Amino acid sequence: MKVVIVGGVAGGATAAARIRRLDEQAEIVVFERTRYISYANCGLPYYIGGVIADPETLTLQTPESFYTRFRVRMKVRHEVTALHPERKTVTVKNLETGEEFEESYDKLLLSPGARPAQPRLPGMGISRLFTLRTVEDTFRIKSYIDQAHPKSAVLAGGGFISLELAENLRELGMEVTIVQQVGQLMEPFDPDMAAFLQSEMRRHGVKLALGRTVDGFEETDGGVKVLLKEEASPLCADMVVLAIGVTPDTRLAGAAGLELGVKGSIVVNDRMETSAPDIYAVGDAVQVRNFVTGQDTVVALAGPANKQGRIAADNICGGDSRYTGAQGSSILKVFGMTAALTGLNETQARAAGLDADAVILSPMSHAGYYPGGKVMTMKVVFETGTCRLLGAQIVGYEGVDKRIDVLAAALRAGMKATELKELELAYAPPYSSAKDPVNMAGFLIDNLARGLLKQWRLEEAASLPQDGSVTLLDTRTAEEYAQGHIDGFFNLPLDELREHLDELDPGKPVYVICQSGLRSYIACRILSGHGFTCYNFSGGFRFYDAVTHERVLTEKATACGMDQ
Amino acid sequence: MKVVIVGGVAGGATAAARIRRLDEQAEIVVFERTRYISYANCGLPYYIGGVIADPETLTLQTPESFYTRFRVRMKVRHEVTALHPERKTVTVKNLETGEEFEESYDKLLLSPGARPAQPRLPGMGISRLFTLRTVEDTFRIKSYIDQAHPKSAVLAGGGFISLELAENLRELGMEVTIVQQVGQLMEPFDPDMAAFLQSEMRRHGVKLALGRTVDGFEETDGGVKVLLKEEASPLCADMVVLAIGVTPDTRLAGAAGLELGVKGSIVVNDRMETSAPDIYAVGDAVQVRNFVTGQDTVVALAGPANKQGRIAADNICGGDSRYTGAQGSSILKVFGMTAALTGLNETQARAAGLDADAVILSPMSHAGYYPGGKVMTMKVVFETGTCRLLGAQIVGYEGVDKRIDVLAAALRAGMKATELKELELAYAPPYSSAKDPVNMAGFLIDNLARGLLKQWRLEEAASLPQDGSVTLLDTRTAEEYAQGHIDGFFNLPLDELREHLDELDPGKPVYVICQSGLRSYIACRILSGHGFTCYNFSGGFRFYDAVTHERVLTEKATACGMDQ
Repeated sequence: MKVVIVGGVAGGATAAARIRRLDEQAEIVVFERTRYISYANCGLPYYIGGVIADPETLTLQTPESFYTRFRVRMKVRHEVTALHPERKTVTVKNLETGEEFEESYDKLLLSPGARPAQPRLPGMGISRLFTLRTVEDTFRIKSYIDQAHPKSAVLAGGGFISLELAENLRELGMEVTIVQQVGQLMEPFDPDMAAFLQSEMRRHGVKLALGRTVDGFEETDGGVKVLLKEEASPLCADMVVLAIGVTPDTRLAGAAGLELGVKGSIVVNDRMETSAPDIYAVGDAVQVRNFVTGQDTVVALAGPANKQGRIAADNICGGDSRYTGAQGSSILKVFGMTAALTGLNETQARAAGLDADAVILSPMSHAGYYPGGKVMTMKVVFETGTCRLLGAQIVGYEGVDKRIDVLAAALRAGMKATELKELELAYAPPYSSAKDPVNMAGFLIDNLARGLLKQWRLEEAASLPQDGSVTLLDTRTAEEYAQGHIDGFFNLPLDELREHLDELDPGKPVYVICQSGLRSYIACRILSGHGFTCYNFSGGFRFYDAVTHERVLTEKATACGMDQ
Repeated sequence: MKVVIVGGVAGGATAAARIRRLDEQAEIVVFERTRYISYANCGLPYYIGGVIADPETLTLQTPESFYTRFRVRMKVRHEVTALHPERKTVTVKNLETGEEFEESYDKLLLSPGARPAQPRLPGMGISRLFTLRTVEDTFRIKSYIDQAHPKSAVLAGGGFISLELAENLRELGMEVTIVQQVGQLMEPFDPDMAAFLQSEMRRHGVKLALGRTVDGFEETDGGVKVLLKEEASPLCADMVVLAIGVTPDTRLAGAAGLELGVKGSIVVNDRMETSAPDIYAVGDAVQVRNFVTGQDTVVALAGPANKQGRIAADNICGGDSRYTGAQGSSILKVFGMTAALTGLNETQARAAGLDADAVILSPMSHAGYYPGGKVMTMKVVFETGTCRLLGAQIVGYEGVDKRIDVLAAALRAGMKATELKELELAYAPPYSSAKDPVNMAGFLIDNLARGLLKQWRLEEAASLPQDGSVTLLDTRTAEEYAQGHIDGFFNLPLDELREHLDELDPGKPVYVICQSGLRSYIACRILSGHGFTCYNFSGGFRFYDAVTHERVLTEKATACGMDQ
């Protein structure tokens, strides 16, 4: 059997090694258009910032080492320019010599990845305008920085790569501005959760121009001018990096008549087979099933790419492995902070037609009585009624990565959101609490499901009646209340509530808030026990304050194009 | 409704607060024989070591604060001395005044906890002999240390409390010796995994006398002599702490005729109801179902106690909540190391009659190319044939707590061990690898299930034929091999294997080892492709060396009673 693989990174490299382990006799050839194979895509921003000092750690595997170990011919600087399914060959161009040749296959695996989106804008070809996708891109940016010592950068786009690069450029002492078309960073997060990331970026001196659209680029004396739409003042910087997303690189597949799907991605079945016989495809270029909604989608993540590579290899070698879909589990270091998510956010869940609700909580990373614990903000999204777990987002410090992975596992296993309360996680004071944050989310959702808890949400804050038709109650201490509260809310600390019940009108619904949501929940239970109808604020004043403060900043940024 | 609760820690305190939240009108009385309620049991060793500096952080709730918030009468220094199910009362003794009285109930909840096991040994009553279970015990040890400045301590028992205390006493500069009857520390771990903990303890100067049985205590001039059985030399120290385990404190329940089970624990159904009407029980004193085996057992863990307290409260208030069993998820800080487990270890699985197998791997806590990653040792136990996930143990540094919780969630959700490969966990270089350690365990088990991988285990090392009837192959580099290898194994580095295949006898089974198990696996696949029968060493030489080195130390310790 002769297997040809297009693309030698992530899914392609994984598949090549796995095919060899399954079949010592197979002939395996990989064509990779860059100079590098099996490189650490996700580490590239950290090489630019110097966190990863040695470039060889990014490219541990070489064509030689791969051949020695796996007897795979890794042909770098070879670009496949056409597929010929009808005669089971591909056309390959040697980028060093210009020579073109046809290579035959018994099985073909496409792992072409995705390309940085390249908008059709004036000035796209100018120097000092970079993209960051490949090792070559990385070396290009790094060597420009090392030689030209730019003082400032504009990053177009507010996703993973952009934020990681922003952090690394800040660590190098550069001024960094992120321009993002939508009004928030990191669209996989709901706007409320993204607000925490935005605050952290600003806290570390990254300027955010949110809700701004890039309209073109102009070379200036030693720099670049980034033109913005809607008469916003242009941004000037010594360099610009375009990181506005990626698109599946499926020109070959499309030209060869393979069925294409969402965003031009290659349609595959759960065996990673394309519409053409003996052609498989994996990674950022393929259409996958969203594990939660069942809808077709594309994901550009290393984990799914690697898993798909292994599955394709199994099937190429006569096995029967199935890919069961992607849930979008992701994590991001943002300076000292960690932001992570899995499954659907609330916006996506609603867009998918699901009757979604969410709980927001602020648990400690470990037992409060053991030193060093930090508060995290956790949002768990579930389906009303069925309590199906739909997704989760967490921002915080220590322990964020742990909780998102527990939630990702629970989601994958099909657990209900209420069953999170039953998870028996490992507890000792340096690591967790006897009631882990994930259990706490389960308790909250269980309380909602049993009707013990009704919530009011941040979105309702602006429209709460201020005419006295409802009671607006803040159950924190007088000191906490004095430091900041929502207009119209009156203060009655939880521990004095029972003595002052007769001052409240049982005929009016009570909207309650405290700092984290716990004391207000207890207040709601007390009030319910006395016949009141109560709504507990999801997330507490801590959450309200963080999100609304950041929203004000974002609106300001939108108005003036840029702010600190 | 009037609810009486016996015991105001963990399960009892949780239940009291939950009952109030469910029923604002209920009368709730808690009798607690110590001075403290709702205290942080698991933090006590850290207060002795000064990690937790303020004793008030251990006892954040007071009877006053609990009454103010929850209208629960917390009667400390009140011991319930008898239950009278027939007339629905309990006899209570006020330990301050000596007064006895009877208190009636509609619902009774028993949360008496467990007591430190007190062996019948000579000298048990002497001073400087402590137990560590309650806040009072803690203050007693702490004040002895502060006043008498002991230089040395013997800890009898090798479980959680003992190891945590050993670390804390070492941090105070004391000489510490642990005596343990069985030949390993931490029996919830298999001996091979416990070896890593033992090494870490020794590395931090804790002396281990394993396989030694305490025979009694004698006061000496300013200290204690710990007598050992089998003519071993006694151990001398300035103080002794007994931490040889706990036993359910069920004298009251037994005397009142409630059904008792394993180790004298209180038998409850999944609603936490005892055999007597309107009497519930939770926590360390009750018999629970082992979630994996379905067998009756007892667990003394805070997480299950808290969950049971919430469930009992729901049912007391007319709800229907069920406890689905305990899986023993636990975690322990051992100086710089973390050790964690969930479910069954291999020994327990076999004892339960299961056809258990295990994979052992040494993955990095995060991507190797990002600085700061550390190797962990992971053992995942599963049932042969069905691939049912039975349990896992991990020792290492960063990221151990995360992986055990993911495995605990997968176990709880009923995932197969092979399905671990499908978990989509959140990957970015500072946190993980595109193939997470948990995925890697799934890949290995999947390979075993498909017959792509056969293993040989540490237990077989001593009995491998050295007569040339099998091939013993070490596929590491010549440098690695020179630094240490198993006698009888010859060196043929993986990357030279294909050129030297003709030197191997295809008629003989090949036992292969490398450093971590990866290169030897690839070697096995190459050899299998050429018709050889191959067995891959589970865990690699790194594991072999660590465990066997520690075994030699343990045997030496057993022989002389004590060693460094």
